[in-house]
Amino acid sequence: MDGLISIHGDAGARERRRIRTGAFTGPTSGLAPGNVQANLVILPRALAHDFLRFAQANPKPCPVLAVSDEGSPAFPSLGADLDIRTDLPLYRVWRNGELVEEPTDVRHVWRDDLVSFAIGCSFSFEEALIEDGIEVRHIACDTNVPMYRTNIPCVSAGVFHGPLVVSMRPLTPARAIRAVQITSRFPSVHGAPVHLGLPHLIGITDINKPDYGDAVPIHADEMPVFWACGVTPQAVIAQVKPEFCITHAPGSMLITDLRNTSLSAL
Amino acid sequence: MDGLISIHGDAGARERRRIRTGAFTGPTSGLAPGNVQANLVILPRALAHDFLRFAQANPKPCPVLAVSDEGSPAFPSLGADLDIRTDLPLYRVWRNGELVEEPTDVRHVWRDDLVSFAIGCSFSFEEALIEDGIEVRHIACDTNVPMYRTNIPCVSAGVFHGPLVVSMRPLTPARAIRAVQITSRFPSVHGAPVHLGLPHLIGITDINKPDYGDAVPIHADEMPVFWACGVTPQAVIAQVKPEFCITHAPGSMLITDLRNTSLSAL
Repeated sequence: MDGLISIHGDAGARERRRIRTGAFTGPTSGLAPGNVQANLVILPRALAHDFLRFAQANPKPCPVLAVSDEGSPAFPSLGADLDIRTDLPLYRVWRNGELVEEPTDVRHVWRDDLVSFAIGCSFSFEEALIEDGIEVRHIACDTNVPMYRTNIPCVSAGVFHGPLVVSMRPLTPARAIRAVQITSRFPSVHGAPVHLGLPHLIGITDINKPDYGDAVPIHADEMPVFWACGVTPQAVIAQVKPEFCITHAPGSMLITDLRNTSLSAL
Repeated sequence: MDGLISIHGDAGARERRRIRTGAFTGPTSGLAPGNVQANLVILPRALAHDFLRFAQANPKPCPVLAVSDEGSPAFPSLGADLDIRTDLPLYRVWRNGELVEEPTDVRHVWRDDLVSFAIGCSFSFEEALIEDGIEVRHIACDTNVPMYRTNIPCVSAGVFHGPLVVSMRPLTPARAIRAVQITSRFPSVHGAPVHLGLPHLIGITDINKPDYGDAVPIHADEMPVFWACGVTPQAVIAQVKPEFCITHAPGSMLITDLRNTSLSAL
């Protein structure tokens, strides 16, 4: 490899190595710009198949980028040297639905029956929006994106069921239309919005009180635009209370070697 | 040619021949299904260049499909045997901005300095919406599409200037998003919407009182979605009051041999 690809690919690997040593434990937003960052879910093999079926049936909130081999900490399609046990800044370890630990490394709880899922994240399409000159409000406000539980049920699979969670970005009508075009090109990172305007139609009673994240101002010439959100699988897992589960801590994502532009379907 | 292409191509030519004999003078909606129908503007050479510049600068309301040679009634790229003087069911002849005649044939007023413009029409993208299962309200109501003058100025070119006129179709949020995707594929027939929801932001004070066409019901779970409209160039020409001009009569479009699907950019 040489040229741009090498430089970009190196940035992801370089950040992962820095994180792996424990030198960095903060949020990954802004690291290795242009590289795909992913949500992480790790489940025992006994639940993995139903979870993957759930994701397959609900691709907008659960776009699966890669699934690991059972027991393997490697994710060769996302990074040659990637070790899923050490390469995220902060993890959450869950037992029977209870958050029991927030470690910077999960080697001490690793098991041979674990299957890892890397799930697409809105960072990828937000970069495309910003590149097009569209302000993403929660980034401008330096807060977490506002997220809402909707009255739209996900398709159930085995034990996994629950409502669709959406993230919201306020946009003017013209920018909302442009954002539909841009994000439609990225089906593997949530794709086009699922709703816009008229939040009460999807069960959102107070737009200023998100169920997760922080409220953001909506200007008089804007409407709320809603995308399927990667918090959906986490909320669904929380309901199921699996005996064991590992996820990323909010904002501490998996940095891959993939480029966001490579996810564009068109 | 054989098979489907021949059948479809023939349908356009067949309808034009029927219209040419004077056997059909009604609206063209529903004729030669799947074939592109076009708005028609015919102007003297002295105004043609500025009009084409206007269209170039305002491609969403004025998507030019073809421009004729000066004085020629032929449009070979739209139909081998096409004669623009006879092949529309009903024309409007304008002198100094006044409607002076609505003939079924314009051979008696033809001039050697006339240039014809075939301009894309929303019929093409409406077919794609309906094909996708999206109800187009004014078609369901069997009325003319509601159209509104906006406060959005077109880019001026020479004597041509004026506001953008938009057509409106009410859609649920999910269908509005899908309609953005579908119509984005058709840039040569108005393309993606220019606005949705919040009609007051573009100068529309009463959605139930369109400036052209007929009002349609908007259900409680719907929002108005606005597309740039081919009435824009006609409204702009009406302001300029050219010494001579021919247009199609509303609803009596130019039927071409092109297939709507061939206009899809993706």
